[in-house]
Amino acid sequence: MNNFEAYNPTRIVFGKDQYHRINELMTEQSIKKVLLVYGGGSIKKNGIYDQVMAHLANFSVVEFGGVEANPEYSTLMKAVEIVKKESIDFILAVGGGSVIDGVKFIVGAALYDGEPWDVLERKPGCKFTNALPFGVVLTLPATGSEANSSAVINRSELKMKRTLGGPNLFPIFSICNPQVVASLPKRQIVNGIVDSFMHTLEQYLTYPSGNLLQQRQAESILQTLVEIAPKILENPSDYEAAANLMWCSTHALNGNLRAGVPTDWCTHMIGHELTAFYGIDHARTLAIIAPRLFENQFDNKFNLLVQYGKRVWNLSGDDKMIANQAITKTESFFQQLGIQTKISDYTTNTAFIADEIKNRFIDRGWTGMGERKAITPDDVKEIVLNAI
Amino acid sequence: MNNFEAYNPTRIVFGKDQYHRINELMTEQSIKKVLLVYGGGSIKKNGIYDQVMAHLANFSVVEFGGVEANPEYSTLMKAVEIVKKESIDFILAVGGGSVIDGVKFIVGAALYDGEPWDVLERKPGCKFTNALPFGVVLTLPATGSEANSSAVINRSELKMKRTLGGPNLFPIFSICNPQVVASLPKRQIVNGIVDSFMHTLEQYLTYPSGNLLQQRQAESILQTLVEIAPKILENPSDYEAAANLMWCSTHALNGNLRAGVPTDWCTHMIGHELTAFYGIDHARTLAIIAPRLFENQFDNKFNLLVQYGKRVWNLSGDDKMIANQAITKTESFFQQLGIQTKISDYTTNTAFIADEIKNRFIDRGWTGMGERKAITPDDVKEIVLNAI
Repeated sequence: MNNFEAYNPTRIVFGKDQYHRINELMTEQSIKKVLLVYGGGSIKKNGIYDQVMAHLANFSVVEFGGVEANPEYSTLMKAVEIVKKESIDFILAVGGGSVIDGVKFIVGAALYDGEPWDVLERKPGCKFTNALPFGVVLTLPATGSEANSSAVINRSELKMKRTLGGPNLFPIFSICNPQVVASLPKRQIVNGIVDSFMHTLEQYLTYPSGNLLQQRQAESILQTLVEIAPKILENPSDYEAAANLMWCSTHALNGNLRAGVPTDWCTHMIGHELTAFYGIDHARTLAIIAPRLFENQFDNKFNLLVQYGKRVWNLSGDDKMIANQAITKTESFFQQLGIQTKISDYTTNTAFIADEIKNRFIDRGWTGMGERKAITPDDVKEIVLNAI
Repeated sequence: MNNFEAYNPTRIVFGKDQYHRINELMTEQSIKKVLLVYGGGSIKKNGIYDQVMAHLANFSVVEFGGVEANPEYSTLMKAVEIVKKESIDFILAVGGGSVIDGVKFIVGAALYDGEPWDVLERKPGCKFTNALPFGVVLTLPATGSEANSSAVINRSELKMKRTLGGPNLFPIFSICNPQVVASLPKRQIVNGIVDSFMHTLEQYLTYPSGNLLQQRQAESILQTLVEIAPKILENPSDYEAAANLMWCSTHALNGNLRAGVPTDWCTHMIGHELTAFYGIDHARTLAIIAPRLFENQFDNKFNLLVQYGKRVWNLSGDDKMIANQAITKTESFFQQLGIQTKISDYTTNTAFIADEIKNRFIDRGWTGMGERKAITPDDVKEIVLNAI
């Protein structure tokens, strides 16, 4: 087991009818003026906006809606201006991962002297050393952003996605109400299942390093997602299934699975490029890339593929067969959720993509990716080609 | 799944050779004067004291040794006096659960106006609303106290153990070095395994309530403890086994398993009495009581006993047989660790104990214990009688 530090100060308030805790928890923070940040406005249709506002009566509230599904740098910079102009001292993110990620950028950029894009570009000496406090009302279980300090920001005009993180970027609290699942479109529910599943696999399907408990904790999430997925598709109002999905998505990326563990994340890195070029939903890019990446890294991931096949998919027999079937089972699971797993299912404009992503990785100096730093730009090209 | 709040701000620093982080983390706290609290002095023999002191060179340090295996109220009150007299502003607990629990009492009592025993007695209006900050250097994986805000305090002259808890009582940081296991007496190692196992079972062997992920997370700990126990007994210097034991013991009581879950804790309540009367090691009291309590609550715990038998002990066949065998397997596991599971293995003075504990529960108004509030004082008497 590798050395590690584990730290996560976010207070998770989980369950039905907990919106009253917003007022109590914000009052503890001695807040004067709040920016309420949300996305496309679905919270005004499903009643969440009214429920949240009812508990913000004691605060001065400025609203900022319109954060996109892949939060846009230019949009978020408008929010940063409002925070400065209005002397906002707390932000409440009401939304899914995109809104929460966007708010993580806003709280840092608002207190940053300089061009915030430099922070996303990781220019030397450029980072958010301070950040405004913020809270979350989660409306979509998927990314785990409600319980970590990481974010992904999009800049369409450059066709770039960049990651952001830091110890100041944990939410003070996150209100997680599984009842929201009942009103979500199926597309978002299945994206959430795949996103949680893939966050877990990126931290699990690597190589054995003595992290026996962490492996089983990862398998716990995978097994639970496999168990509840058909139930939740059949009936999104099944509170038990929704609660388990929401708790799985939080645990898949709250920092626990990576403690002392070699992690991969190359599926995400390639997937981000597919979103940047084609606008394919994040979760779907993972479903497209993962099976092909596991095939490309079959030998490097062999031991864990076998364990995954046995423990999550209950496979038995020859180890090599188990490892192969584990990949097939994973892809079938995604497909049974209604998710297509080829790039050509989403676009016909595919001729350039494999070389383009390979070259982008080379330009960034990403010559050895994944848990063994064994995935070369040529491997990336092969993975993408096989995913077309 | 029940509603819940999950909050744990302790920073866990886990692994080899991390003592240098003490200086860094304490410097962040702007500390002037530190009380170093430890137990019987084993840290001076195994080198931990010297390693810790080397990283406290920048601080004014006062020492307080001699905290007992079940931390004594009278001893801790002496430390409280020193804290006040010396204007201590940070405490560093170097030890196992007893030292850490003792420090949780000290940090609260030092800022409390009044008789601290009233807080332990839960007298109305009596609680620690403030506490000094404290850190931990863990020397023994067992209680999980390094990652929670709970404590158990002993008062021998009254033959009483009392619990303590509160949001101010989380360690700021805990340095967890699995290498300490190599120098521990076998008795302490096996106590740690049983303690972690029973903390998990108290939060798992109750009844199904839709907490699918939490159940699997509990099973992950149980399965891992079963896997590593023989390895660690054969070779306490096996770092991988020690690291997994230490991480299991932290996870067994860091608040995660109880999230949204009905919990029992009656084995602990009865076990505390056996320690109060006979001085039997805490973990051993759990090994004595648990199998008899599971038999007494067989019908109430049936569904989870079956699941536990199948998933942790790989049992198959008739459900009733599986549930019975699961109890037998648990007791055998404790016995294979060298732990005796009858009160009469520890003392001949047993005639009074069942009625005495029953009456103590009645005196406290504890008429319905366990996850269903179904364990009556008469059940407690029967459980203890069957454990003699």
